[in-house]
Amino acid sequence: MIAIHPLVEKLEPYSAGIRPEPGVPAIKLNQNENPYPASPKVAEALRRLAPELVAAYPEALSDRLRESLSATLGVPASRILCGNGSSELITLMYRTFAQEGDTAAMPDPTFALYGTVADLAGVRVRRVPTDDRFRFEPAELAASGDDTPRLVVFANPNAPTGTCAGRDAIEKLLRTFDGLVVVDEAYVDFAPEGTSVVDLTGTYEHLLVLRTFSKAYALPGARVGYAVGSERLVRAMEKARETFSVNAVGQLAAEAALGDPDWMRRSVARIGRTRDAFCAALADAGWGVWPSTANFVLVSPPPGGASAPDMYRRLLDNRIYVRYFDAPRLRDKLRISIGTDDDMKAVLDVLLEGSR
Amino acid sequence: MIAIHPLVEKLEPYSAGIRPEPGVPAIKLNQNENPYPASPKVAEALRRLAPELVAAYPEALSDRLRESLSATLGVPASRILCGNGSSELITLMYRTFAQEGDTAAMPDPTFALYGTVADLAGVRVRRVPTDDRFRFEPAELAASGDDTPRLVVFANPNAPTGTCAGRDAIEKLLRTFDGLVVVDEAYVDFAPEGTSVVDLTGTYEHLLVLRTFSKAYALPGARVGYAVGSERLVRAMEKARETFSVNAVGQLAAEAALGDPDWMRRSVARIGRTRDAFCAALADAGWGVWPSTANFVLVSPPPGGASAPDMYRRLLDNRIYVRYFDAPRLRDKLRISIGTDDDMKAVLDVLLEGSR
Repeated sequence: MIAIHPLVEKLEPYSAGIRPEPGVPAIKLNQNENPYPASPKVAEALRRLAPELVAAYPEALSDRLRESLSATLGVPASRILCGNGSSELITLMYRTFAQEGDTAAMPDPTFALYGTVADLAGVRVRRVPTDDRFRFEPAELAASGDDTPRLVVFANPNAPTGTCAGRDAIEKLLRTFDGLVVVDEAYVDFAPEGTSVVDLTGTYEHLLVLRTFSKAYALPGARVGYAVGSERLVRAMEKARETFSVNAVGQLAAEAALGDPDWMRRSVARIGRTRDAFCAALADAGWGVWPSTANFVLVSPPPGGASAPDMYRRLLDNRIYVRYFDAPRLRDKLRISIGTDDDMKAVLDVLLEGSR
Repeated sequence: MIAIHPLVEKLEPYSAGIRPEPGVPAIKLNQNENPYPASPKVAEALRRLAPELVAAYPEALSDRLRESLSATLGVPASRILCGNGSSELITLMYRTFAQEGDTAAMPDPTFALYGTVADLAGVRVRRVPTDDRFRFEPAELAASGDDTPRLVVFANPNAPTGTCAGRDAIEKLLRTFDGLVVVDEAYVDFAPEGTSVVDLTGTYEHLLVLRTFSKAYALPGARVGYAVGSERLVRAMEKARETFSVNAVGQLAAEAALGDPDWMRRSVARIGRTRDAFCAALADAGWGVWPSTANFVLVSPPPGGASAPDMYRRLLDNRIYVRYFDAPRLRDKLRISIGTDDDMKAVLDVLLEGSR
């Protein structure tokens, strides 16, 4: 019998939000997808898609897209690496910069994939508890524990909590820790202006920022993410990656989306308004609501009523899919992606009925 | 300064065929792409592509495509795993079934990526020389060397040689070696009927067959490959993979292509006729031609005339891109993908001019 690598054998795989049955109407608020379509420029690019595009190998390094990103971000293309979603870049960051037995420090809770991929790479995970409002000091992630971690990773805004670390706090980490600092800005477009630290990659050689087209740009099916860092970091990851990892249509769609930032910002603004109204309605009804700077919100039913798992099941009975994490500090909560106003009204109807 | 993993640091990255400058007419015969477009059903599927498809995360396990593959191959869907091109599956096979320090045996020469990815995973590569006609006995790959390899991997037809191992010879390996046997059938549709060993995955639990939509199905830009093996092998790789590695449009295009096998077979038959005529013309002119069962051919200029690198440069001067490998036993040869009849006439014009 073929032996399976012990790290794979003992792995608890990452579990994504479940998919509704195809063809059955449902409200899907469990993967932090954007309820609004990508820019019409994407639809136009897809409509004009020449089948020849899929008949040839894609650009290995997504050159056109990288040039557009370079112009948008004001960062040289040589400091940008595109990936098959940011998932590929998360795998690459461990494979390139950590060795088996090294430690990666991260806040607890954070995006579960950082832990899964670390487990798979044999990297030890140090989970540093966040405070009672799920906030954390980035510099303390590096300082906690007995030994210095090889790398520190967190999402900013963080998932599934929606909290946001400030630039100054991140810079403090960068000044006091010389290991790799990975800031995953998947949700940064939803956060207050000035949250991103992409510009700091020009100053700090040990900073790697991850971004994705899957959230604000509404292209999760295109599978395009990118990393911004110093040339040294980017070149090393480039060596370790698979040559043709980014699909040709994905590159095209991402470039089209990037060409219409106003559309993205309008979509983000609508989601923000919907989120704030939804949070206010739940808070009014006595729910615990954690202030979110992302396109999802973590909420907790009022004490004495139906529990979070009960609420999860009621929503599911109404074909509304949200996320429930059976984990410490999260098992009395739900994480709900922000959909359209109609979507959130449907959610409120079930939740407030359930907590009345 | 951030330390780079020593295996990445010392890696010689895989180098793919170079791309012509965009917009400049060129004949591209250096990546074994199909000169004929994918089935009109693919163009139709892309034309009818709903932008919503890229607005949601793709099916994690490519369920619809897997069901179609299951029906086509007569193999349960649970024994099929789709990947982001077969490149992802090659990475996964090492990460899942080999550990650092294990040995992978492979013929020499073979597809260079097997070696690169092994290097990256810390797996030792044992290259077993093929005979003077680049043929090899699969069973001898496992038997060579001092210790038993963890796995044996080869392409069948092999690249860049075009040689093909028979079913019986592969079954002999499967009966005499109990490590993992990986047969990469990227080019199998070009080979004689009965070459594939996909059906043997039901009998031999240690056989993994890799396939791709990038060659006969003409979809390299879609990045879809798949592995067929026992449930145990497939489940283990499934655990180790990235959740959303296969692009939604890629899944759609591959399924459409699979639905038109006659188109693929006609395209393959044309390429076969062109290949045979091209090989005959070169052989007539005194070139060395290795009999190929794939959509490329390995050829060597007649002694006394221009060398292979000279020929490579002459072709490049005429904007014809072929592959030159600066490696033992290959540096006096060119590997030329089979294009249209017109493409090959243009190649012949340059090569025969050059060797006259």
